[in-house]
Amino acid sequence: MQKYLLTIIVGLGLTASGVYLLVAKPVAAAQTEQSSVVFNADGTMQLPTGFRKWVFVGAPLTPNGLNNGKAGFPEYHHVYIEQKNVDAYLKTGEFPEGTVIVKELTRVLDPTFPDGSRKEPSGRGYFNGEYNGIDLTIKDRKRFAQTNGWGFFTFGHHPLPYDKTAAEKPVSECAGCHIANVSATDMTWIQFYPLLRDKKGY
Amino acid sequence: MQKYLLTIIVGLGLTASGVYLLVAKPVAAAQTEQSSVVFNADGTMQLPTGFRKWVFVGAPLTPNGLNNGKAGFPEYHHVYIEQKNVDAYLKTGEFPEGTVIVKELTRVLDPTFPDGSRKEPSGRGYFNGEYNGIDLTIKDRKRFAQTNGWGFFTFGHHPLPYDKTAAEKPVSECAGCHIANVSATDMTWIQFYPLLRDKKGY
Repeated sequence: MQKYLLTIIVGLGLTASGVYLLVAKPVAAAQTEQSSVVFNADGTMQLPTGFRKWVFVGAPLTPNGLNNGKAGFPEYHHVYIEQKNVDAYLKTGEFPEGTVIVKELTRVLDPTFPDGSRKEPSGRGYFNGEYNGIDLTIKDRKRFAQTNGWGFFTFGHHPLPYDKTAAEKPVSECAGCHIANVSATDMTWIQFYPLLRDKKGY
Repeated sequence: MQKYLLTIIVGLGLTASGVYLLVAKPVAAAQTEQSSVVFNADGTMQLPTGFRKWVFVGAPLTPNGLNNGKAGFPEYHHVYIEQKNVDAYLKTGEFPEGTVIVKELTRVLDPTFPDGSRKEPSGRGYFNGEYNGIDLTIKDRKRFAQTNGWGFFTFGHHPLPYDKTAAEKPVSECAGCHIANVSATDMTWIQFYPLLRDKKGY
């Protein structure tokens, strides 16, 4: 009888685990962490969508032409944050748990000068070429406790289509530079984003 | 008797005019033209608000350092359009009547090279400095029939605070360049805005 009871208990346990796995994959981070990115059961992240209508905060530009043809981030960096998290930052000076920051790269449009610039009716300068990749960071103090509470992901530095999933990047590739340079501003380059830096509102 | 009647009629007319002026100033364009800018009774436009949470479409950059110290638009041009109008453009290829396009300028952040660039951990390039002005265009085929259906306004090319109202700019200062270069794309520099040009969605 004890043997049968054990079998039943183990069986129930396995069934419950199976149901849990079915329900838990994928897990929408929005449900627990106030963000809209989706983690898979193995901890990788799904390619985010919809971020081009989030709030734009700044456009650093590091052209290949000014970086020996090998910019670390080629070339425009368009940085987006969901409005609810920008609102919270403007109000409190802190990003809420679950905040996602997306950096989408675009190349510069058809350079005609060695520095990557070209001439247009508005003047000589730089203009957005094709989409060229996504880097993303998400604030989760527990999950990413080892890297000051933020996890870093990249979906490739290349034209569309982007990678469909991404694993957390090693400290040496992303978090390390943020830790070294912007620990004091919650791992974020606030100094490059007028909306967050100058606090003049929308 | 006829004299009294005339006095009464004129009096009623003046009263009605007075009521009309009170009601009509300012007129929210949103009510009739699907936009969020506000015209004053004299045809000038009020400084728009809230545009930094509209959809960002591109960031041309014409640094003073690459334009003999005198860029026509110093220096980053951040271009924003309300989501409903981006949605319509992506669906139909046309901007609806009342579409507003805001171009906010920022200077480049503290240049250290003659071309206006500086070095940061992400590489040598350009980063957003202080806010430096707003140009705006609105589509209204009747009101701006003389300039291909779009009116052009500027609230100054200078740091905050921006001008509080703006009159329509003469053809020679804004519309002329759009007519000469982008008549075929509804007066808009679609070629510089990946979201509108490449039609990959959000």
